[in-house]
Amino acid sequence: MTSASVASSSTASPLHNDRFLRALARQPVDRTPVWMMRQAGRYLPEYRAKRAEAGSFMDLCRNQDLACEVTLQPLDRFPLDAAILFSDILTIPDAMDLGLYFVTGEGPKFRKTVRTPEEVDALKVPDAERDLDYVMRAVSTIRGELNGRVPLIGFSGSPWTLATYMVEGGSSKDFRHVKAMLYDTPDAMHQLLDKLAHAVTDYLNAQIRAGAQVVQIFDTWGGALSTPAYMEFSLRYMEQIASGLIREQDGRRVPVIMFTKNGGQWLEQIATAGADAVGLDWSTELSNARQRVGHRVALQGNLDPNVLFARSGAIRAEVGRILESYGSGPGHIFNLGHGVSQFTNPDNVSAFVDALHDLSPAYHRQPQGDIPARQQDS
Amino acid sequence: MTSASVASSSTASPLHNDRFLRALARQPVDRTPVWMMRQAGRYLPEYRAKRAEAGSFMDLCRNQDLACEVTLQPLDRFPLDAAILFSDILTIPDAMDLGLYFVTGEGPKFRKTVRTPEEVDALKVPDAERDLDYVMRAVSTIRGELNGRVPLIGFSGSPWTLATYMVEGGSSKDFRHVKAMLYDTPDAMHQLLDKLAHAVTDYLNAQIRAGAQVVQIFDTWGGALSTPAYMEFSLRYMEQIASGLIREQDGRRVPVIMFTKNGGQWLEQIATAGADAVGLDWSTELSNARQRVGHRVALQGNLDPNVLFARSGAIRAEVGRILESYGSGPGHIFNLGHGVSQFTNPDNVSAFVDALHDLSPAYHRQPQGDIPARQQDS
Repeated sequence: MTSASVASSSTASPLHNDRFLRALARQPVDRTPVWMMRQAGRYLPEYRAKRAEAGSFMDLCRNQDLACEVTLQPLDRFPLDAAILFSDILTIPDAMDLGLYFVTGEGPKFRKTVRTPEEVDALKVPDAERDLDYVMRAVSTIRGELNGRVPLIGFSGSPWTLATYMVEGGSSKDFRHVKAMLYDTPDAMHQLLDKLAHAVTDYLNAQIRAGAQVVQIFDTWGGALSTPAYMEFSLRYMEQIASGLIREQDGRRVPVIMFTKNGGQWLEQIATAGADAVGLDWSTELSNARQRVGHRVALQGNLDPNVLFARSGAIRAEVGRILESYGSGPGHIFNLGHGVSQFTNPDNVSAFVDALHDLSPAYHRQPQGDIPARQQDS
Repeated sequence: MTSASVASSSTASPLHNDRFLRALARQPVDRTPVWMMRQAGRYLPEYRAKRAEAGSFMDLCRNQDLACEVTLQPLDRFPLDAAILFSDILTIPDAMDLGLYFVTGEGPKFRKTVRTPEEVDALKVPDAERDLDYVMRAVSTIRGELNGRVPLIGFSGSPWTLATYMVEGGSSKDFRHVKAMLYDTPDAMHQLLDKLAHAVTDYLNAQIRAGAQVVQIFDTWGGALSTPAYMEFSLRYMEQIASGLIREQDGRRVPVIMFTKNGGQWLEQIATAGADAVGLDWSTELSNARQRVGHRVALQGNLDPNVLFARSGAIRAEVGRILESYGSGPGHIFNLGHGVSQFTNPDNVSAFVDALHDLSPAYHRQPQGDIPARQQDS
């Protein structure tokens, strides 16, 4: 099954909209490309209908046809420039047999936790193409259905972020078990993170072979660490992953995006860890980020998702402010600074994307007399 | 009652331990002073006993003798260099008749919310000495009981932080109502924050007159804002408060500490907003903070409170790392980067304070041949 998927991706249709890939390569575009973290999700009534049909959340992830349908839903509503695989960040620990389950209102939980050196030692690193074949089937199905419409993003949680769930046994407010483990038994923590880095590398490479054209590493909880702990226990393992990824597929570069929520203080270090682009939450000013690292990487972000609870005039003003903060020229991918909230009115997402389409072309006009040859030809 | 309290503070005993005040003024000390945010609280069995005796949490805050007892409890256990008034950050909205109540496991709630211009308009600014007299009685009782042992810190939530609870009706994960209000009706939000800034100024000045020797403004939720929104809706009002505070009482400067959780990206702006010291959560490296703003303000922080879930060796190592990060010389007040967790073992707090007492004097020795005259005299 997976080898068929791999074959299918190399014979895929040409890409009709490469705005996102061009921005990731910091090449000129006609307008700022946009996608939204968690763009396929509960804020869409058509998603809720499909979710009810599937049964559980993981049933939805495990069925490639349903996963494909919900991945494409936001693209049918909004003119977005990328699709992102519909899946969960906890597929890897689930494949490590920790017993993932979901409790309504409490988020993900694990039946088994990993806290001692012995428990770390006993963990097996899954083989992504075998143990997570349902993800690869979803990737290749989505890639086929997209048929070159926009690029497909694959993703994984970062090793540190995955470790927080595995050690705590689910979501956490304070991360006290995983931090106690980090400070008390740093060797065991490193062993766990190294295993996870190998698993994530294998998982993302399998997604790339199955058809993912860009990959993003979500480091949702790296920002909960002190500066030296972030460098040693989170960024280091994202760097290890980046150095092991397939970076060219079907003659095209496969860009990597690293996103550490609350990582604004560490942009310089993130920008040298092997990513093509760095994701920003809304706390960091884009002008400041561009000045610090814009010569090295593209920048993705950074509208506060809660701005989408305001009215269209306020949404437009914030979109305009963020465009102005980044300024003219390539290298910016518009996104939210975190996943879209389940309580968002889809009409407000339309207002956001419309404002961007309206306002962003002005930031991509070449100055008079300075038009590159390839743009004049087109 | 309150005028009696005011009189009592001006005749208070001389201060026996002024290490904290000296560090706030960036003057030499023999060792790094230390206190802990939320040092009087649920992690202490003697607190839990007193809380059970009082009835509700607010009953404990409203009884000056019990509030005084729990304020002093951590000082009897650990050699800390400051006491902080035991109270709640929501006393001001409570005095605005919003109907504060507590639900076990869910935190504070308000019966009424404030979301429209009309609701903002209808809010009365409380008179602190009249409407919050129980707080002033607690301050003067504690100051009397301390009898010069260590200085007493008064405090308030920042206007923005108070507004988040008042608009959301309690704690929030995403602040969607208060952010929708900020973006949709910024004038109403400014009117609310201006009222709160006046209320906080009056409240802190009343605490100072009642005996508080230092005041801290807790901006727990400023870090949830974008950079321009933080400047306009949070920092601006803390600056307004600082400019209206009594800065000298009984012949001594009354220092102001501003603490914005997740505010590490904005230290330069916070350091010019009128504070004597800036509080840091654990995500910011002290060496970096000192380089950026250490010539202007003292720095308070910044041990991750979850390090107190590790064993004593790891706690000592982190204390040492933080001392080394700040480096030699005055201007550092040791603290946690956030309140101590209710699940902390008090023995680990002892390990933390002991490590600090053991390791910090080395950072305060004057170099040979460079001893200031006033130190030689003492």
